[in-house]
Amino acid sequence: MRIEKVCLRDDNPTITLTAYVQDQVDMLVKGPRPGILICPGGAYCECSTREGEPIALRFAAMGFQAFVLQYATFFAPDEPCEPYALEKYGERPGCRYPAALLDAARAKAAINAHAKEWNVDPERIAVFGFSAGGNDAALFATRWHEPWLAEAVGAADPCALRPAAAVLGYPVADECFEPEDPCDAAVGAAGPGEARADGGSPSRVRSTSAVRATMNTVLFGTPELAPEQAELVQPARHVSALTPPTFLWTTAADALIASENTLRLALALARAGVPYELHVFEEGCHGLSLATQETARAPRHVCPDVAEWVPLAETWLMKRFSLDLAEA
Amino acid sequence: MRIEKVCLRDDNPTITLTAYVQDQVDMLVKGPRPGILICPGGAYCECSTREGEPIALRFAAMGFQAFVLQYATFFAPDEPCEPYALEKYGERPGCRYPAALLDAARAKAAINAHAKEWNVDPERIAVFGFSAGGNDAALFATRWHEPWLAEAVGAADPCALRPAAAVLGYPVADECFEPEDPCDAAVGAAGPGEARADGGSPSRVRSTSAVRATMNTVLFGTPELAPEQAELVQPARHVSALTPPTFLWTTAADALIASENTLRLALALARAGVPYELHVFEEGCHGLSLATQETARAPRHVCPDVAEWVPLAETWLMKRFSLDLAEA
Repeated sequence: MRIEKVCLRDDNPTITLTAYVQDQVDMLVKGPRPGILICPGGAYCECSTREGEPIALRFAAMGFQAFVLQYATFFAPDEPCEPYALEKYGERPGCRYPAALLDAARAKAAINAHAKEWNVDPERIAVFGFSAGGNDAALFATRWHEPWLAEAVGAADPCALRPAAAVLGYPVADECFEPEDPCDAAVGAAGPGEARADGGSPSRVRSTSAVRATMNTVLFGTPELAPEQAELVQPARHVSALTPPTFLWTTAADALIASENTLRLALALARAGVPYELHVFEEGCHGLSLATQETARAPRHVCPDVAEWVPLAETWLMKRFSLDLAEA
Repeated sequence: MRIEKVCLRDDNPTITLTAYVQDQVDMLVKGPRPGILICPGGAYCECSTREGEPIALRFAAMGFQAFVLQYATFFAPDEPCEPYALEKYGERPGCRYPAALLDAARAKAAINAHAKEWNVDPERIAVFGFSAGGNDAALFATRWHEPWLAEAVGAADPCALRPAAAVLGYPVADECFEPEDPCDAAVGAAGPGEARADGGSPSRVRSTSAVRATMNTVLFGTPELAPEQAELVQPARHVSALTPPTFLWTTAADALIASENTLRLALALARAGVPYELHVFEEGCHGLSLATQETARAPRHVCPDVAEWVPLAETWLMKRFSLDLAEA
């Protein structure tokens, strides 16, 4: 395997795509491989390293060419990340909506452009994301066909941007913005429990409201969104027959991004007739990544039951993304 | 193991509970075992044998005392089942709502009464159901505490009826009764595909509407329900903090009972703060039961991916229903 990092924007060297490319070897696999475009989470404040390279390596081990995107976030990769102290840093318009969505489109365009060199099939690229990265990935999966997006990233044909599948873990997919929505109360009620469970780092994990306020501030410069702003960044509101088949997972005990997000996205997929698979595990906090020791930042991040999402996702992906095996 | 069948009603010998009871043997397990009360599906027209004994044996193999309920259905166990020709048989008031719900409560009361003889712990009884049986099981799981139910079955204390968990496969949980509901269109559109997939037996599998009309006719004597009737038999509308932890599974491709049923029940559980686990597999038709050859009536009933629901359910159940192991 070789690892290459390319810049996606002339005007901002921190927006990058890191490619994990496997060479052809003495096996049946001969043709271009399927690929996976990984959007790590991090509340649009950072791209979490826990949700980047370890995921790339896991999918590389399934035979995918893997790509980790550093999309536009409030803090640059070399800055300390302080998601609950944004006001200290002043205005950062470069990470406002739709910067991260455009970066996802640029990443797909870059994969297309490097297809031969990276031995990857542009028609079989899954887009992947966790948490806020799941928001970005799902926005791209549901809105890739909008003409302005192709135009903005210089793609001649919107169809070149189409992802073949989406894989989303604990995504921010359909937060409630109406205070009278019954699920809002449940979300609020769950928050403090998570804050306690997190132990030593209360400033990083507060409540869904605090995370939402942070994401809103990064994307729109304000903690409270108008309905028309909220609509723009809720993938569940953009699902259509053009949305690719989607694999979703989360945990019912996620107190930071309530499982209702994932359930509502699944409902939208079901209504639109989009093939989908969904696994909600009972236990486990937000941000589990692989749910193994490999990606654990705390003991609670090791959850053998939840780690089953990986073989379930592999089974699901292999139905549509089998490697091309040459004739014997 | 010994198998015993008891009658649950003096006035109707066809309402029965079949107990699959394991004797104590030379193992660490000494105390009363957890139990599972199984409600097979069958559109309230029959209790499907595919969803009864094979399930009991599978859970018995996990160490449970297992109980299969024959609740009130339109056709008696010894009659041919013709779910789409109910009009030929005239009125059958004995299977009207809430007969089957009462039978579930009677079954729990019978398990309590035989607890010593059957070596089962009444505090650790999961209720289980598929399809219409999933409707009955979920109605019992969400409404066990209503005083009229305990009174009707002669239970001194409603708490004696409480199930400790619910396990539901492709349940009828929240059908849309408002024609303007967007999911209704999706449900209707999916119906014919299932009818074609079923092949030789078109009279058994038509569309969600036909199944719904059948169930409504059995439960209320009319194919179309008033909203207040519909409310009574939609478990998602009765979820509360008194609902036990719930494990749900279905398939996104289920064209007979749309996966939205299961998603909406999960949403209700999430909103009420009830611990839940949910698995929606992409492929697979309605009525898969174990999804193995053991319960297949057609080749399409063998789905290795979907058969994973059994170990997933076992893992989930064992968290709260571990066998009592005596000190070594």
